[in-house]
Amino acid sequence: MGKVSVGFTMSLDGFIAEPNDDVGRLFKWYFGGDIAIPVPGTSMVFKVAPASVEIIQELLDAYGAIVTGRRDFDVSKAWGGKSPLGVPVFIVTHNAPQEWAHSEWFTFVTDGVESALEQAKKAAGDKKVAVGGTTITQQLLKAGLLDEIHIDLAPILLGDGIRLFDHLGTPIELESTRVIESKFATHLTFRIVK
Amino acid sequence: MGKVSVGFTMSLDGFIAEPNDDVGRLFKWYFGGDIAIPVPGTSMVFKVAPASVEIIQELLDAYGAIVTGRRDFDVSKAWGGKSPLGVPVFIVTHNAPQEWAHSEWFTFVTDGVESALEQAKKAAGDKKVAVGGTTITQQLLKAGLLDEIHIDLAPILLGDGIRLFDHLGTPIELESTRVIESKFATHLTFRIVK
Repeated sequence: MGKVSVGFTMSLDGFIAEPNDDVGRLFKWYFGGDIAIPVPGTSMVFKVAPASVEIIQELLDAYGAIVTGRRDFDVSKAWGGKSPLGVPVFIVTHNAPQEWAHSEWFTFVTDGVESALEQAKKAAGDKKVAVGGTTITQQLLKAGLLDEIHIDLAPILLGDGIRLFDHLGTPIELESTRVIESKFATHLTFRIVK
Repeated sequence: MGKVSVGFTMSLDGFIAEPNDDVGRLFKWYFGGDIAIPVPGTSMVFKVAPASVEIIQELLDAYGAIVTGRRDFDVSKAWGGKSPLGVPVFIVTHNAPQEWAHSEWFTFVTDGVESALEQAKKAAGDKKVAVGGTTITQQLLKAGLLDEIHIDLAPILLGDGIRLFDHLGTPIELESTRVIESKFATHLTFRIVK
């Protein structure tokens, strides 16, 4: 079964968005480079620095499903009505919105994050499950259900915003498994030691 | 004149010490490796992984003075009465402690962090000034007086503790100038873009 992996672009001071949810300053590494990588099934094109190509290819190929939270779904405006990675998305929520009841991409899960993760794992098969949303990430971390953390560290101190890791409470050991230095981000992958 | 550089070992969730000021889990990269590097003038010996040797040598050679805060001085118990790097230490405080009035290492500065920095720059000559203490770091960052940030990123989520970068307020652009992957830490150096 594939790993459960959370990935975020984070500033050096630990923020994954500005207070108004803006990610423009953080996402320079997706769009500020010279190498164009179209996202299949969408009109979006990443433009990345050479050293970031491997990371983008992995993002496009390695994942078989996504688990995220309702806020992520709402803030992104339902990613324009499609899955951001072209794979099934399981959204943890208290109330499933009726207007999306027949979406081919979105499944709303009202019985908790662990149930959503189980469904995502089945959908992903041998591929990885991508975890999104800070609340979902913190819940899965605390429950010991994450395998891997991937951070695209943006060279900026945002000064304020939404923290990825707030006070989690208990120490969690990691092992650095890959470091890639690129122009607009340092790509860091960690295995969660269990 | 040498650069003004702040350096900290930080967990992935942004803490530089546990709530009780303990740094044991963070400082594994100083003491968990195989290569012994004695600290001149002290009985301390670093034991680091091969890729961290360059960072330790820089720590021992590149700095000509230290600016830090009173809390750092108190928590470290005056570093056993000696400068931690064998160079003059300028300590920003409201009240200079009389028992250290004749120390060969410590100068207590009661007229603010900018004055302490000026004195440290003079003492350092062509070498770098090391900045310590989270409050001093945040004050110098906001005043635009730091040139460089060095982070030894420890592979751990501490879950709670003392943050290096709390809500600083305004975005500050950085440029990644060096990344070294090592066994117990990823060494990251950033230039502060002014």
